[in-house]
Amino acid sequence: MTDSHTPAPAAAQQRLREWDRRFKEELPDARTVRNRSGQTIQPLYTPLDVAPLMEMPGEYPYTRGIYTTMHRGRSWTQRQLIGLGTPEDYNRRLQDVLARGATAISLLPCNSVFRGYDMDTVHAELLGTCGTVINTAEHMGRALRGVDIRNVSIALNDPTPFTLLAFLLVEAERQGVAWDHLSGTANQSDYLSHYVANHMFYRLALGGARRLLVDKIAFCNARVPRYNPLSIVGQHMQQAGATPAEAMAFTLSSGVQYARDCIAAGMDPDRFLPRFTFFFDVSISFFEEIAKFRAGRRVWARLAKEKLGARSERSWRFKFHAQTSGADLTRQQPMNNIARVTAQAMAGIFGGLQSLHTDAFDEAISCPTAQGAQIAVATQNILRCEAGLTDVIDPLGGSYYVEALTDRMEEEIVRIMAIVEDAGGMFEATRSGLVQKMIGRSALRFQERVEAGEQQIVGVNCYQAPEESFPHPALERPPKQEMERFIAEFRRWKEARPASQVRCALDSLARAADDGEANVFEAVVDAVRAGATHQEVCDRLRDTMGFGHVQAFV
Amino acid sequence: MTDSHTPAPAAAQQRLREWDRRFKEELPDARTVRNRSGQTIQPLYTPLDVAPLMEMPGEYPYTRGIYTTMHRGRSWTQRQLIGLGTPEDYNRRLQDVLARGATAISLLPCNSVFRGYDMDTVHAELLGTCGTVINTAEHMGRALRGVDIRNVSIALNDPTPFTLLAFLLVEAERQGVAWDHLSGTANQSDYLSHYVANHMFYRLALGGARRLLVDKIAFCNARVPRYNPLSIVGQHMQQAGATPAEAMAFTLSSGVQYARDCIAAGMDPDRFLPRFTFFFDVSISFFEEIAKFRAGRRVWARLAKEKLGARSERSWRFKFHAQTSGADLTRQQPMNNIARVTAQAMAGIFGGLQSLHTDAFDEAISCPTAQGAQIAVATQNILRCEAGLTDVIDPLGGSYYVEALTDRMEEEIVRIMAIVEDAGGMFEATRSGLVQKMIGRSALRFQERVEAGEQQIVGVNCYQAPEESFPHPALERPPKQEMERFIAEFRRWKEARPASQVRCALDSLARAADDGEANVFEAVVDAVRAGATHQEVCDRLRDTMGFGHVQAFV
Repeated sequence: MTDSHTPAPAAAQQRLREWDRRFKEELPDARTVRNRSGQTIQPLYTPLDVAPLMEMPGEYPYTRGIYTTMHRGRSWTQRQLIGLGTPEDYNRRLQDVLARGATAISLLPCNSVFRGYDMDTVHAELLGTCGTVINTAEHMGRALRGVDIRNVSIALNDPTPFTLLAFLLVEAERQGVAWDHLSGTANQSDYLSHYVANHMFYRLALGGARRLLVDKIAFCNARVPRYNPLSIVGQHMQQAGATPAEAMAFTLSSGVQYARDCIAAGMDPDRFLPRFTFFFDVSISFFEEIAKFRAGRRVWARLAKEKLGARSERSWRFKFHAQTSGADLTRQQPMNNIARVTAQAMAGIFGGLQSLHTDAFDEAISCPTAQGAQIAVATQNILRCEAGLTDVIDPLGGSYYVEALTDRMEEEIVRIMAIVEDAGGMFEATRSGLVQKMIGRSALRFQERVEAGEQQIVGVNCYQAPEESFPHPALERPPKQEMERFIAEFRRWKEARPASQVRCALDSLARAADDGEANVFEAVVDAVRAGATHQEVCDRLRDTMGFGHVQAFV
Repeated sequence: MTDSHTPAPAAAQQRLREWDRRFKEELPDARTVRNRSGQTIQPLYTPLDVAPLMEMPGEYPYTRGIYTTMHRGRSWTQRQLIGLGTPEDYNRRLQDVLARGATAISLLPCNSVFRGYDMDTVHAELLGTCGTVINTAEHMGRALRGVDIRNVSIALNDPTPFTLLAFLLVEAERQGVAWDHLSGTANQSDYLSHYVANHMFYRLALGGARRLLVDKIAFCNARVPRYNPLSIVGQHMQQAGATPAEAMAFTLSSGVQYARDCIAAGMDPDRFLPRFTFFFDVSISFFEEIAKFRAGRRVWARLAKEKLGARSERSWRFKFHAQTSGADLTRQQPMNNIARVTAQAMAGIFGGLQSLHTDAFDEAISCPTAQGAQIAVATQNILRCEAGLTDVIDPLGGSYYVEALTDRMEEEIVRIMAIVEDAGGMFEATRSGLVQKMIGRSALRFQERVEAGEQQIVGVNCYQAPEESFPHPALERPPKQEMERFIAEFRRWKEARPASQVRCALDSLARAADDGEANVFEAVVDAVRAGATHQEVCDRLRDTMGFGHVQAFV
């Protein structure tokens, strides 16, 4: 230890003042530095900016991590989002990613699925180029062939009305696997985030979406108890232009909204909150992202305990998945994205994530190629096995900058959440367009900074290179005949179904939607079991509950 | 701020004990984690591990950086080592790298130059494949064509007897640029590191090398005052297998040796020490590297002030260049190296470096390709412009882990330096083979850990992939006819020289080497000015001072 380790407050203040004088002398016109959340960043942080943090990992409010052992005990879950072509194509890539060290599964369906359509009612050209075409329980079975669904956690990108989960449940029945063996997470179950910022995933009118989510949470809590029925997503909002502080604040506000809706439906917070998870973008604003996650953990723990009345520690823990932000990646010089993804991933790891998806460098251009996906997985392996990032829990804890920024971030998140609360909570603030307007303003501000050159992006507004030296990977497309064969097979299968059984199940679904007491998600599962397809379920619910038109707010 | 921010010592101890009990309960057989330097790494660091660090950047002993404004005031120098083919080839690539944001020049000569030979006495096949063929002052002029040598810092990879610097000085005379306008750094001037770990650069017997270095430092201090005549290199030793702590300790011990040699020659430490710089490898052992640099700064400042008697702050400052470690890069799945380089570069930046070279991802396979070099430069640009790493000075300062590890690293460096000191200092410890033996033991230990799978390396001993999916870039070679033309031209030029003038200058060089009072480096410059080539200077000095045979120590 150095002799300068023990400061007396007055002497310390004096030293800082002297340093500050020298700093201003040497840099008389030092620029003001702000992070993406608009906070001013000092050039130096010292012990005077923070008090020692004697909180332990696993201790409320969890600044240093939600578990006692954190990454020393168990590394993050390595979850690579993949999806392409037919269920068979998906299965091949899945086996490859599992063999390379991925420890959990993630299924990304085709755009057509996100929009609520089956393969035989859309233009065939783009089918399977951005995700896997899954329209029935049987397709799900093929996609997961050879995977031990009892022991592998399965994440599904599965918006309202959650047909993919219904497919999985029916496939489990077929395999004779009891539902209480299934684990995983429902991504894209957060309809507010879709209404605000990801319109493609938005299918039902706000009221219907609200009801289906509560019903699904109740259903899963009771019957698929290890499955996380809700992942609350900050990613869409941050990619739409929300600052990191806003993205965290809006996401936590959504969490409060969903919890209140469940409580209003008579559910116990200590039953459902332990199954709430979160999903965030990690941008390349390194320290800001670390502080965002550390602060978010604190704010959520306090809310769960003090506002939502949860008494169990399991309810207070802020579990999150992070995906490196595709919005920071550039089409220009795409291999540079490997460096961006590495820095983003490190910020997420230092932020204490539970699960991580690293983007492939070519995601800015196309659905990730096999090589892109391999490098993305390897990046996680390198950070985990070679760089020693998991040796120490919360390794940046105590850093004067990181702790001070965590405190500042917490204040900012709480400030933004109060605005939402004053507007009636997240549902109302979304319906009225308040959230959308705030995000729009932030998006504009960022773009203005890029165009003014204040925010530099390498290869975009500085250090440009001639395009030709970086050949773009070709868009991978499933072979045309393959997809045509798949569609024809699907048509034949539909015609061969017992039509009356399907019609009857869909009628029951519509009745459930009309009946305030029924569980609509249970009726979705029943319809799928009877042979209903994805679009048939979506169409019937849209008829009953209203279509999800998104309003523009300026 | 959280309510848990203010610990009372006894209560804090109690909390830590309770956390530790829970940790051991959850992980009863937790593995012992050691870093590459062999230090045990705790799973958690808390305020109890460190005292607040009230030292300011720019304040002795410089834990938080050697300058008041550090990277906020001036980012690191982006120095990309390049070299290939003929001087004209070098010049083309140089212009490209400068246009992409490099702010200083670095010249890597061909292997033949490192070994002390001219192009016409070696096998032509490999000429120019690993560096640029530069044998005369006129070649240096062509390599730097179009570069404003008054204003661009020029680093030269230039081992004893420093002919490249002699070429640069003569070229400056030709351009009418006064020597006191030249700035830059002599890399590869540290002959002890060559004798220990980089035999290719080792040309003269230890005694001769020792004398030439002192003479060159004296010459530069007096006549090229902005040029740093000595960069002390930890890189070779770490790449040969020294642990990060050993590499730092041996390098600082070399620094002490060189300083004592200069003092013995009658020089003033406050004259030569401000021009000493250091050069290190940054491995992927992220926190260990950060701590290595922070601790190294403290140890050097104390040595310079307390042992070497320097009175000026400029003499105490530990200025260093870092190069991401090529030893961590893999031939397997080479694009993964972009992720490794990113993490390594970040460790160097957080360690407070003054200058950085990022390796190209394909350096594990060949001399970097143009694409590899572009991505390496872009990685630095991204970290500087996009990731906000330079917003705050010493951003990890205060981290309980980083500060505790910095303290531990300092102890370990001091301990290893004491072993060297007991053996008579670095010159004697090198001559006797002590340093080589220590490095050999560490190299063996690391290799054993890799082979036992304790040290994982992605793609090498885990997560292997079939070789064919990662096509290796072809070795770039200068066109054969081009190199033949260059050699023929060189031969003609040599024959056309005034032979007697060259012979006379080389005779003077030999006399200077024999004469204890003369400055041998001055005689090198005179010989080069008279038209002597690189090999002619090396040969004549080897005749006089002895050839640099390296001994094997087991």
